[in-house]
Amino acid sequence: MKLYGYFRSSASYRVRIALNLKGLDYEQVAVHLVKNGGEQFAPAYRALNPDALVPVLQDEYEGHAVTLTQSMAMIEYLDEVYPQPALLPSSAIERAHVRALALSIACEIHPVNNLRILRYLTGTLQVSDDQKNAWYRHWCDEGLKVLEQKLATDARTGRFCFGDEPGMADCFLVPQIANAQRFNCDLSGMPVLMRIHQACLEHPAFIKAAPANQPDAE
Amino acid sequence: MKLYGYFRSSASYRVRIALNLKGLDYEQVAVHLVKNGGEQFAPAYRALNPDALVPVLQDEYEGHAVTLTQSMAMIEYLDEVYPQPALLPSSAIERAHVRALALSIACEIHPVNNLRILRYLTGTLQVSDDQKNAWYRHWCDEGLKVLEQKLATDARTGRFCFGDEPGMADCFLVPQIANAQRFNCDLSGMPVLMRIHQACLEHPAFIKAAPANQPDAE
Repeated sequence: MKLYGYFRSSASYRVRIALNLKGLDYEQVAVHLVKNGGEQFAPAYRALNPDALVPVLQDEYEGHAVTLTQSMAMIEYLDEVYPQPALLPSSAIERAHVRALALSIACEIHPVNNLRILRYLTGTLQVSDDQKNAWYRHWCDEGLKVLEQKLATDARTGRFCFGDEPGMADCFLVPQIANAQRFNCDLSGMPVLMRIHQACLEHPAFIKAAPANQPDAE
Repeated sequence: MKLYGYFRSSASYRVRIALNLKGLDYEQVAVHLVKNGGEQFAPAYRALNPDALVPVLQDEYEGHAVTLTQSMAMIEYLDEVYPQPALLPSSAIERAHVRALALSIACEIHPVNNLRILRYLTGTLQVSDDQKNAWYRHWCDEGLKVLEQKLATDARTGRFCFGDEPGMADCFLVPQIANAQRFNCDLSGMPVLMRIHQACLEHPAFIKAAPANQPDAE
């Protein structure tokens, strides 16, 4: 298996965690999002993923070469093809709950704070760095506060986002918290998120997936 | 089944299409996103969904009341619990492909152009209406151009996004095109998207789900 990614990309980080939780071997190919004008825009990479986004996952499945985009689609694929340990619960209700937690990060927080969005704000819209950072913190804070409330009031929350084993929602939570910390978001009012985050950081799959532990880390 | 939504909300529209494709009966509860200061912010609605976003889907499953958030989690749930007709293909590779198409709309296009984002731009950041509209069209154009390219070059594309029956990706495509048209995006360079969009518009499940055909339409 081959993962094209960038050490600091949230979406790459999510997939690394999932691969590690499954105990799968994978080769990493670094796609530097800043150097060389952004290696994600190179024609060879665009041929893999016209979106010019990381990550891309390549696998062989029943004799076919597979090239996958979109981190959540990859994690669903991994959970279907390499079912143990499961990253989603076994009941449809619980799966919907865990997917909704992951999607609340993937759709409500992360896209708004992506590199290309921040560049459009400071470039095309000429907002100041302070305004850009306030934008980042605003959406991060709004989204994480709600996630905190959901997890704090749900009996299914355990040592991890769902029960006592790490799963899909944790794959999304940890990279988002890493980003929030990089932008100095105030996480003091989020004890449940931070407790789960800490539990994840002590888990070997998450340690191995951390940005600082990647071959392309700076 | 009960769907809390808003006639013009993309995410509500996606779930209406999925429910109609499955032939399921549902009661609609209108949550007006603009009137009364935004009915999604009312405490009773926030108790259903702390995100203050539409839609919310309520169902009964094996004797349990279920309240679901996040449109994609709902559609996955519907496909698991009411499997016919299937909205996702049967093979893991093809499922990953269809999910990635849906996610490229749900994560790369829609969140950036959401009502609350546009309000932050014109409110907090004081950008002009022209700049706001240019922002909208920029992200819509970037995202849809790539989707056009993916669908145009993939042998799996048929009358619909995947093959000749409507499925999950079409549930995401049609509301996004409706939004793009409302913001006067230039869709002339997207013949495959527009051909699929047209095929959907002729399908009874999509006709019944259209914003103009909802009880709360204005």
